[in-house]
Parts: sequence; C-alpha cells; structure tokens
Amino acid sequence: MKNILEALHWRYATKSYDATKKVPAEQVDQLLEAVRLAPSSFGLQPYKIIHVTSPELREKLKAASWGQGQITDASELLVFAAVTNLNDSHVDTFIERTAAARNMPVEQLAEYAGMIKGSINSRSESERTQWAAKQAYIALGMLIETAALERVDATPMEGFDNAQYDEILGLRDLNLTATVVATLGYRSEDDGYASLAKVRVPMEEMVVKM
Amino acid sequence: MKNILEALHWRYATKSYDATKKVPAEQVDQLLEAVRLAPSSFGLQPYKIIHVTSPELREKLKAASWGQGQITDASELLVFAAVTNLNDSHVDTFIERTAAARNMPVEQLAEYAGMIKGSINSRSESERTQWAAKQAYIALGMLIETAALERVDATPMEGFDNAQYDEILGLRDLNLTATVVATLGYRSEDDGYASLAKVRVPMEEMVVKM
Repeated sequence: MKNILEALHWRYATKSYDATKKVPAEQVDQLLEAVRLAPSSFGLQPYKIIHVTSPELREKLKAASWGQGQITDASELLVFAAVTNLNDSHVDTFIERTAAARNMPVEQLAEYAGMIKGSINSRSESERTQWAAKQAYIALGMLIETAALERVDATPMEGFDNAQYDEILGLRDLNLTATVVATLGYRSEDDGYASLAKVRVPMEEMVVKM
Repeated sequence: MKNILEALHWRYATKSYDATKKVPAEQVDQLLEAVRLAPSSFGLQPYKIIHVTSPELREKLKAASWGQGQITDASELLVFAAVTNLNDSHVDTFIERTAAARNMPVEQLAEYAGMIKGSINSRSESERTQWAAKQAYIALGMLIETAALERVDATPMEGFDNAQYDEILGLRDLNLTATVVATLGYRSEDDGYASLAKVRVPMEEMVVKM
C-alpha cells in the first residue's frame, strides 16, 4: 500500500512534457489493457479510446484545447469518447460476448438482457450519454493510477472544446463524443508544477461517518 | 505492471461477501487516502464520501438497493455523494487551501479563482452536479484499483434508488446527492460470480487509432 500512496503523491497533472521522450509501445499497450479491464455499469463499456498519433490531428486538437502544449508534446494522446446512441443493439452485442466468454447459450441471458435494456431505455438520450461518460471516468481513474505506479506521467484534461474535438476527429459519424482527455509521457525538467505542494481536502472534510 | 494487470484480473464485482471478515481499520484509512489523492477538475474534489457504519442505516439502504446483500454484508459501505450546490464559495475555500499549502498570498491566485468560477458559472445547476459526479467516478476507479492491488474485494454499484439514499442519509440538507456506491470486504467462498470468465470488449474494438 505504501508504494501506491507514494505513486499517487509522485504524480501530478503534468503541464510540460519532454517532447523527446516516448513511452515504449509495449507499456502503452499495457496501460490501455488496464483501461480495458476497468469495470463499468453492467460491464457495457459504453466508450472508446481514440489514440491520436497523427501529428496533424494533434496540432488541430491543441488549437481546440486553448493551445495547451500537452496535446502535442506528450508521448501519447488518448481521447475518451462516450457512446451517444446507446441502444438495444449494444446490449445484444454485450450479451453475445458474455455468452461466448462464459460458454453458455444466449437464451440463458435473455432475462439479464431485458433488465439492462430496461435500465437504458428508462433514460433520455442525453442521460444515456452522461451515464456513458461517467463510466469512462472510472477507466480514466484507473489509467491515471496505473501510469503513476509505472512512473509514467499523465494529465487528465477537461479543458478542451468538445464540439471541435468531435468535428476534428469525425466522432459524430461514429456515434461518439469526446468526453475527457488523458496525455501520457514524461515530465519536462522545467515543469514548475512538479514541485508545487499537492492540494487536497483534509480527510476529515472528505469523509462523513454515519 | 504485471502485478497490476493480475490484480485487475483477480478483481470482480463481488456479489456475496463473507460477513464475518472485516477490513482492518488502518487499511480502510489507506484506501480512503487513495480516494483523497484522486485528481479532479481544477482539484476541486466536488464530492464527499459517506462512510456508513450504522447497521440500522445499512439495513435501510439495502432496502433502497433492490435488497442486494453487499450493502449489509460487506465490511465497509462507502457512498460517493456529489456536491449539488457548487458555487463561488467552494472555489474560495479551494483557493484558500491552495494558498495555504503553497505558502502564497490568496491575491496571487485571484485570476485563477476567476477562471474556475467562470467555468462553474457557465454550467446550469444540473450540469454542475453531473460534472461533480463525474469527478467522483475518477476517485471510484482509483479506489477499485487500489483495493484490487491490496486484494481487498470491492463492488462498484449504481443499482440503488438515489432519491431514497438521499432521504435515508439526510444528504439534501448537506447539499449532496448519492452518486455511486462502493462496498469493500472479502468475497464469500460460495460467490459463484468469482469464477465466471471476465467479459471485456476486445482491445481492437475499444481503441481507435487516428
């Protein structure tokens, strides 16, 4: 546990990356594997990760992110994109995947499928997208912690223009919308933010015992 | 990295807990410390953790959670509650905390404070609460991963009646609303879910390279 808390103290929202340093491809894959293993409501994983490697796209996204240098200078740029058209067919796909993984007939999961569909259909389209976005934030939390444990710097970012991101990446055609961004890489030696004291609410204010 | 991915494979949304086993208090504190260290937008941490230890309250919450046994049988019950009245005074408190931690005059952070207030005030009240809830999900992800690394079982839960939770815990008076629940403890030996194959979207479907 000590090493986990040390890692969480070590990390900070990196502002300035060393643009010459790349996270090894195998490690990027493993960080994405941690994201893939993240839990989500019903296990639906109603989001995709856009791994943006094109320098041209990254330049355009930087302009849609108040010019923040992390977007182009970090080794990796991941855009968490929530599904905007969550519907029965997503559930059917999930149920088929479940039946295959667990070696059981799809029919045996019919009641479960109906329950998930009922839950989805009880929400408005906008509520569904919000709900999908929240699931993505669980995965974001696990990415940030996993990166910290590996001493890979990371920056969770909401400071970008979602509509412009959707336009630049063509996400609307994929029934996705940009929800939150994470960059990965290595802090620049001149990032003054690295040495600032971490600011957190005191434990006694965060936790209410009842 | 190998041990992290092993832990994420080991974990599952525990359905049946061994009600006789308690997570040691010191370890609970450390898990909460991981939650406290979680990042959030601007660092505002717009949520609280309700640590429900009263057996009477846990029974009532179980009834408001479709009777799911985790609520009473798990060692610990944590309710992530989002702030519902996020406003300038939260920002002022945050700025004062930042100034104190970094040993700088509050005035030096005036521009930053204005920027955060502008961001908050550009959202409707409902949007603010949704946004606060999303931040809580980052912390939830980190709790789940930290617990898994410590081989403490955990269950993230959305299957409860938020309005009833708010009523039972008196959250409205605290300007909070129940957002997501996590239980912590140790799986029961007879939890059949423990041995089911994990179902996840294949990597090539989750990640879109651009």
